[in-house]
Amino acid sequence: MKKETLYGIHPVFEALKAKRRVFFTVYTSGDTPSKRIGKVVSFAEAQKIPVHKISPSQLKSMTDTDLHQGIAARVSSYPLAGLSEITGDPETAAANRFLLLLDNVVDPQNFGALVRTALSVGIDGIIIPKNRSAQPTSVVSKSSAGALEHVRLTQVTNMVNTIKILKNKGLWIVGLDRTAGRSVFSGDFPDSVAIVIGSEHKGIRPLVKKHCDFLISIPQAGEVDSLNASVAGAIAMYEVFRQRRFEPVYRANGNKMT
Amino acid sequence: MKKETLYGIHPVFEALKAKRRVFFTVYTSGDTPSKRIGKVVSFAEAQKIPVHKISPSQLKSMTDTDLHQGIAARVSSYPLAGLSEITGDPETAAANRFLLLLDNVVDPQNFGALVRTALSVGIDGIIIPKNRSAQPTSVVSKSSAGALEHVRLTQVTNMVNTIKILKNKGLWIVGLDRTAGRSVFSGDFPDSVAIVIGSEHKGIRPLVKKHCDFLISIPQAGEVDSLNASVAGAIAMYEVFRQRRFEPVYRANGNKMT
Repeated sequence: MKKETLYGIHPVFEALKAKRRVFFTVYTSGDTPSKRIGKVVSFAEAQKIPVHKISPSQLKSMTDTDLHQGIAARVSSYPLAGLSEITGDPETAAANRFLLLLDNVVDPQNFGALVRTALSVGIDGIIIPKNRSAQPTSVVSKSSAGALEHVRLTQVTNMVNTIKILKNKGLWIVGLDRTAGRSVFSGDFPDSVAIVIGSEHKGIRPLVKKHCDFLISIPQAGEVDSLNASVAGAIAMYEVFRQRRFEPVYRANGNKMT
Repeated sequence: MKKETLYGIHPVFEALKAKRRVFFTVYTSGDTPSKRIGKVVSFAEAQKIPVHKISPSQLKSMTDTDLHQGIAARVSSYPLAGLSEITGDPETAAANRFLLLLDNVVDPQNFGALVRTALSVGIDGIIIPKNRSAQPTSVVSKSSAGALEHVRLTQVTNMVNTIKILKNKGLWIVGLDRTAGRSVFSGDFPDSVAIVIGSEHKGIRPLVKKHCDFLISIPQAGEVDSLNASVAGAIAMYEVFRQRRFEPVYRANGNKMT
């Protein structure tokens, strides 16, 4: 079984709670005992997982970072989902699905931040390409504050083909593009929607963009283009969330984007 | 005149564009000539600012970081605004003001991210306490991608007194609090509003919270409290922005928060 090393309080704790990885050993460095670490250790021990104390320098060398917060765990590799788990079975597939497609997001910090927000809005699944993308590593588990341990995430080899599959299942594909004339706030999102977010510098690749049903941008005051990629993604995801949960009146009167 | 050292392409370029700081010298390291640095250098030279080439190690030692991207500048200290510049003069003060109060945000990355989003929504001003808060340093200019160079920002010694002044000027004080029962999406924001964001771990201080007109939270799906502080702030700021610019129908029919 392939193993990897999670580190940091949130990743280890959330992975324990999610129960999707096999835990081999939890490691703590005795130098900074804290309530939060104590809680994680008790939780691990209750699941009969061995907990070892090691020195801070051993922990640093095991995790290859200073950001371990005094705790790490040897675990099985990230539990990727299959595409069908994310889209649902054919009959129930398209009902109110909400997916996130990350087209070449390469920065693990941005990836983690987007995963974190995706969990907050209850996304049904995240799709990333196998190549030229940040991958669901322990660095991303840390930058997502452990949210990665709970979301369903799948890797695909061809994003355009995947988009075609999603369209066949009734999802609308909405690309976030800073040059788009249509604002994220200008109308109602379709009931089943996949938001596409591109790379930090180049945005969505042209061929993927071509296959989006429509493109939206996040409006900004003033002339400085100031929005961070993960914040822009958060605004888009939360607008979908808001429309679904908080605006029956507006949805009834509103103008559909489609 | 007190000097400091800005570093990174965005901070130097945005500070040059904003024309609020005195520029003494721009420094570049010749090792990574790029189009973007060339553009900043031309812009500086057109303003008759001396541009010196130094070695990468000199640049690193001058900026005390590896994140300088090959460019730095010796400049006058950050141009703080006065509170009255932010609130406006007494007659026009309260008309559609939109302020951001950061109550003990200590992480320079979060501070920078919030400043960046604040610029995107056209905030009229940002207020921070003099103590126990990240300050508008070159680190924050960098983490804000230079947005710090454009926003109006003031320091105050007593946040509660400042809130009283703002209330007298007709602003409503809305605190972001994860325990608040009222959702950011549950109604219309007042026309003149100051959003209060607290520290990453402890939130808004109790006495400041007590002086808020009301408290709101960002709703989340599922049970994991997953939102990053700067993303939560972005959702709140963009909801105010959205209501102001994109929802005349909803505002007419909607239920006022107040």
